[in-house]
Amino acid sequence: MTDQPGGLADSAFLRAARGQPAPHVPVWFMRQAGRSLPEYRAVREGVAMLDACTRPELVVEITMQPVRRHGVDAAILFSDIVLPLKALGVDLDIVSGVGPVVAEPVRDLAAAEAIPSFDGDRVGFVTEAVNELVAQLGGTPLVGFAGAPYTLASYLIEGGPSKDHALTKAMMHGAPDVWRALMDRLVGISAGFLRVQAEAGASAVQLFDSWAGGLTPADYREHVLPYSSAVFERIADLGVPRVHFGVATGEILADMASVDVEVMGVDWRVPLDRAVQRIRPHQAVQGNLDPALVFAPWDVIEAKAGEVLELGRTAPGHIFNLGHGVLPSTDPDVLTRLVDLIHSYEFAVAS
Amino acid sequence: MTDQPGGLADSAFLRAARGQPAPHVPVWFMRQAGRSLPEYRAVREGVAMLDACTRPELVVEITMQPVRRHGVDAAILFSDIVLPLKALGVDLDIVSGVGPVVAEPVRDLAAAEAIPSFDGDRVGFVTEAVNELVAQLGGTPLVGFAGAPYTLASYLIEGGPSKDHALTKAMMHGAPDVWRALMDRLVGISAGFLRVQAEAGASAVQLFDSWAGGLTPADYREHVLPYSSAVFERIADLGVPRVHFGVATGEILADMASVDVEVMGVDWRVPLDRAVQRIRPHQAVQGNLDPALVFAPWDVIEAKAGEVLELGRTAPGHIFNLGHGVLPSTDPDVLTRLVDLIHSYEFAVAS
Repeated sequence: MTDQPGGLADSAFLRAARGQPAPHVPVWFMRQAGRSLPEYRAVREGVAMLDACTRPELVVEITMQPVRRHGVDAAILFSDIVLPLKALGVDLDIVSGVGPVVAEPVRDLAAAEAIPSFDGDRVGFVTEAVNELVAQLGGTPLVGFAGAPYTLASYLIEGGPSKDHALTKAMMHGAPDVWRALMDRLVGISAGFLRVQAEAGASAVQLFDSWAGGLTPADYREHVLPYSSAVFERIADLGVPRVHFGVATGEILADMASVDVEVMGVDWRVPLDRAVQRIRPHQAVQGNLDPALVFAPWDVIEAKAGEVLELGRTAPGHIFNLGHGVLPSTDPDVLTRLVDLIHSYEFAVAS
Repeated sequence: MTDQPGGLADSAFLRAARGQPAPHVPVWFMRQAGRSLPEYRAVREGVAMLDACTRPELVVEITMQPVRRHGVDAAILFSDIVLPLKALGVDLDIVSGVGPVVAEPVRDLAAAEAIPSFDGDRVGFVTEAVNELVAQLGGTPLVGFAGAPYTLASYLIEGGPSKDHALTKAMMHGAPDVWRALMDRLVGISAGFLRVQAEAGASAVQLFDSWAGGLTPADYREHVLPYSSAVFERIADLGVPRVHFGVATGEILADMASVDVEVMGVDWRVPLDRAVQRIRPHQAVQGNLDPALVFAPWDVIEAKAGEVLELGRTAPGHIFNLGHGVLPSTDPDVLTRLVDLIHSYEFAVAS
């Protein structure tokens, strides 16, 4: 997977993330390590999600699977955004077909203040897995990730997945002291978890704010952005490219890009040239083929991927990805073919 | 509820919908007739959703409840977007806690062609209910509605609610003949159902394309817009204001507004002044307080509603609403108070 004599630092992924010319457009897929792969389903059999994330040999195997199979330009650590909360002692689990379920939702100041501080010793299994992965991956970068404070807060407050985040917004507006206490703690956890991964050898990190797109721009700016910004600032010294991503974020993309971040992840709703107009000139973009488009005939996939690639050229760097995670029913062969397409794509001659 | 000596035609709702000066900003709420009201839960006890929609006396009572309680400026017919499909003979039901469930999902041309044509005689109960409502409502307009072809198609193809609409998009891209056949039939059903309501006396109609916001702008334009446009064209002769609405539609708002429509519904993600820049100059806007904001303290609701009202002034007409339906756990007293606030709001002096 090493593209260049220079190795990791010269990998297409890291060059694109830094806005430098790359030998080809790099490509990876959110949730590439997951249920779309039969080899993943095989090793996960009988192992609960959060247990799998804490066993380094499984984390390494699952993280490597899509790299071996698809030849993607980056690995993404097999983990979950709620994993650090669980590792720190928050009573939660991932229930199949539901998502994260929190035993005692956070509804008052005492509960918010009871959220433990980040402690790297509690996630030693991550350090171990990342160390081993970096050795195995060689010239292929490993992306670490964490959930953003708002998205983590929404699970803690709602007690599980929610369509409307009514309780989360009620706390945001109605109990500012509780909100601040909870979000401050989550900043420490998000930043701490990203730091552990980068210090163990991850080449880049991504902050997932999955649900931020459900907020009005005003609420995002006032009640969420300062905390996400703090996460990015706390890890600025690590020197690894940082990616900021959420879904349905078209209206808040400019705000999300106002933080200290190198790469803006863009969901499939926003054409990349529009995204580029909203973010900062030095920022690279990551995205954004509709994850459901993999079920289309190949000629449609080819055409739509080509459009994404052409629009991606309006940014100083482009990392090809889906606009959200790989759907479990995705045919993995289509993803492999897509990687080959991206790698061999011949750009239209500039007019 | 009659605001003006002129009665219905001079109602604040219809004036704003036509971009004419109104005595105050009119307000109604999507799903105002529904589970947030104890009197609704009482009359619905033991009656299945789709049964309730077919009993004129219940439809009238439920439609009138929020008008009586809140003093809103428009009634919305108590119905469901899948009701006409059911009435025409499609085997489906609304399952509590799930949503519409279709017994035999549409997956091939034969199934698409088996979707019945619209037949007004099958929805005589709607005509009856609307006739009675118009008599009772006097100067308060009644809004009729229908699901847009894409949203109806998604239920028919997926067999029920879906997060990713993978099967719908697969058909859109992979089986264009099936897609066309299905969408053509749904155009007839959407337009026919709106026509029945308007001819029975509804003063305005709204087309709900709930899931269109999950499409890329390119896919929306190519595979969905022509059908929604056809619906609006087919009812242009009715002379009633038409509203076009969907959720997470920021990126397709300009396309949605390119059809022959008087009012653009805007979800809470897009500030109304931004929406106005994307739609056509003569169009009024409807929206768009975050439906979850009703759980905030009153001073926050008041401030945010004030922002919506101020931004709404950038359009030639503004109908205040939530950015999506009333959440079932909403305190109805907050909605009543919100109506009073909107009606008595003193606009900032223009600078």
